[in-house]
Amino acid sequence: MIILNGGSSSGKSGIVRCLQAELPESWLTFGCDSFVDALPARMRADDAGIVIGDDGGVSVGEDFRTLEAAWTEGVATMARAGARIIIDDVFLGGAASQQRWRKALDGVDTLWVGVRCAGAVAAGREIARGDRAPGMAARQADMVHEGVVYDLEVDTTRTESVECARIIAAHVR
Amino acid sequence: MIILNGGSSSGKSGIVRCLQAELPESWLTFGCDSFVDALPARMRADDAGIVIGDDGGVSVGEDFRTLEAAWTEGVATMARAGARIIIDDVFLGGAASQQRWRKALDGVDTLWVGVRCAGAVAAGREIARGDRAPGMAARQADMVHEGVVYDLEVDTTRTESVECARIIAAHVR
Amino acid sequence: MIILNGGSSSGKSGIVRCLQAELPESWLTFGCDSFVDALPARMRADDAGIVIGDDGGVSVGEDFRTLEAAWTEGVATMARAGARIIIDDVFLGGAASQQRWRKALDGVDTLWVGVRCAGAVAAGREIARGDRAPGMAARQADMVHEGVVYDLEVDTTRTESVECARIIAAHVR
Amino acid sequence: MIILNGGSSSGKSGIVRCLQAELPESWLTFGCDSFVDALPARMRADDAGIVIGDDGGVSVGEDFRTLEAAWTEGVATMARAGARIIIDDVFLGGAASQQRWRKALDGVDTLWVGVRCAGAVAAGREIARGDRAPGMAARQADMVHEGVVYDLEVDTTRTESVECARIIAAHVR
Repeated sequence: MIILNGGSSSGKSGIVRCLQAELPESWLTFGCDSFVDALPARMRADDAGIVIGDDGGVSVGEDFRTLEAAWTEGVATMARAGARIIIDDVFLGGAASQQRWRKALDGVDTLWVGVRCAGAVAAGREIARGDRAPGMAARQADMVHEGVVYDLEVDTTRTESVECARIIAAHVR
Repeated sequence: MIILNGGSSSGKSGIVRCLQAELPESWLTFGCDSFVDALPARMRADDAGIVIGDDGGVSVGEDFRTLEAAWTEGVATMARAGARIIIDDVFLGGAASQQRWRKALDGVDTLWVGVRCAGAVAAGREIARGDRAPGMAARQADMVHEGVVYDLEVDTTRTESVECARIIAAHVR
Repeated sequence: MIILNGGSSSGKSGIVRCLQAELPESWLTFGCDSFVDALPARMRADDAGIVIGDDGGVSVGEDFRTLEAAWTEGVATMARAGARIIIDDVFLGGAASQQRWRKALDGVDTLWVGVRCAGAVAAGREIARGDRAPGMAARQADMVHEGVVYDLEVDTTRTESVECARIIAAHVR
Repeated sequence: MIILNGGSSSGKSGIVRCLQAELPESWLTFGCDSFVDALPARMRADDAGIVIGDDGGVSVGEDFRTLEAAWTEGVATMARAGARIIIDDVFLGGAASQQRWRKALDGVDTLWVGVRCAGAVAAGREIARGDRAPGMAARQADMVHEGVVYDLEVDTTRTESVECARIIAAHVR
């Protein structure tokens, strides 16, 4: 299992697609975006679900956490059942988020990867992609890494996605 | 757990969104589309993965089946961990596909729903949506239901998605 | 030129794709969605641009109207230059919106088509598609047709898109 | 009017979105992607329309050229009618493509911008975005600039989209 953690617009999805192309085996990918897509529409703008503020702040409620915990368990089962999995996540809770994954993944061989990107550069890419709430990239750039321990870090500020993917792939035995 | 099975363009996704809106609790949804999105791009045009022919025929290979089995296990775990889940699937193998789910879902309370749509009508909707290989809808309309046993069947040929969703919701306790 | 006018979720886009498939010649299609996509992101949530309220109400400002007028002129030029064009629009201003098109299209042979859908049914389809502001469909269902004169009307409440497209195609010489 | 020309995955769309955010006035944007979306589905895989080969080669047929010419005329009219417009194009014909635009834009004040990106880097970004035919980026990287005359060139190989947009915006009076 490979877990990528990084702020919004830090380039995680691009790295994931390159990793899937680079690695010789077939790796499945899931992440916070695919999880949020699985929620009822009403939870995407509800205090019990996930709310994205006008300043790009993200807050999640109790229902979100409950479903996310079950989802995390399920992903761990997929890994134990033999699927190679790349997770693309945003640790809004920093070290606490990592701890949640660690608990679910007990016994699963996991490569922890930090995806860094300078806040100002991520903010520019947020404008360029045009589909994210302005402000998320800058807010999350450092916050999501607080207290998180990695096997490996990449920085997309000046390194292309495909290059970052190669660095990560080299660590996957 | 609710499992909807129906051919391409039979209206499953619309019913799922209406079900998520209709049901008072928060239900997660996954399905063959979200699974295929999780695959490496190269598996979406590879004999070991999934190949969609010019005639709309779909064939899946060994790698696909292996990852799908792990994914199915994981979804069952999510349900056992307390998440309410709606699956939107296309049983390309008919009764055999149902059997795969049944095995993984052992002990999980499941509502099996058949989503029917007359082949000719589904074929028209396939043109209207414009993002599917022509021919899939007609080919799958009956095939996916062969030998499958349901708790409930809905037919979108003349019934709106929201109406079908209400019928299904009434069976959820 | 063919102009389809109907409320949100009345099924215009599906009819357009079927019309493009049905008609033997190659028809280009544009519409209010493609126009809005062409605007700067900031105009999609600005009083001078286009604002979609929480109740599904849509209001457009002066900048929007100015750019829309230039766009309308341009589309008329494409038609005069020989392109067959299908427009998929929402006449928020009813008869006044039609008048704007009429003025720009002076001398261009135009088929005016009303796309009706019962408000309650359109509202259900709005939930099923899941990507529109709730309330738009019901609000616009009748409003957009006020005072508009058609060569032909279709009603998607009980008629499939592909059927509506065939009815329209039969009127295109 | 601003016309950006560059190969696939050279970063044109990102620059356009940043330009729209950067420029104080409201600029509309159109381009080869929005034009291709306007075509009938069948023309997107037809010799008379546009065909994308397995090697990423793109060939367009007579019907495509005819409709494109009318579309170009229409865009020129929009500009003459007062709309500020940014075009995002791929000059498959190099200088000949520029000549077609020049003819239609007679009298319209136009800023010609070349968007360069080293072929190898564009090819990596093509994998990262995951929605383009592999090979297009490398093939088009130099080809589309052959014989084209620019007011200004930017290079996304090592410069962020938002930076390129600022350079271009500084040339817009």
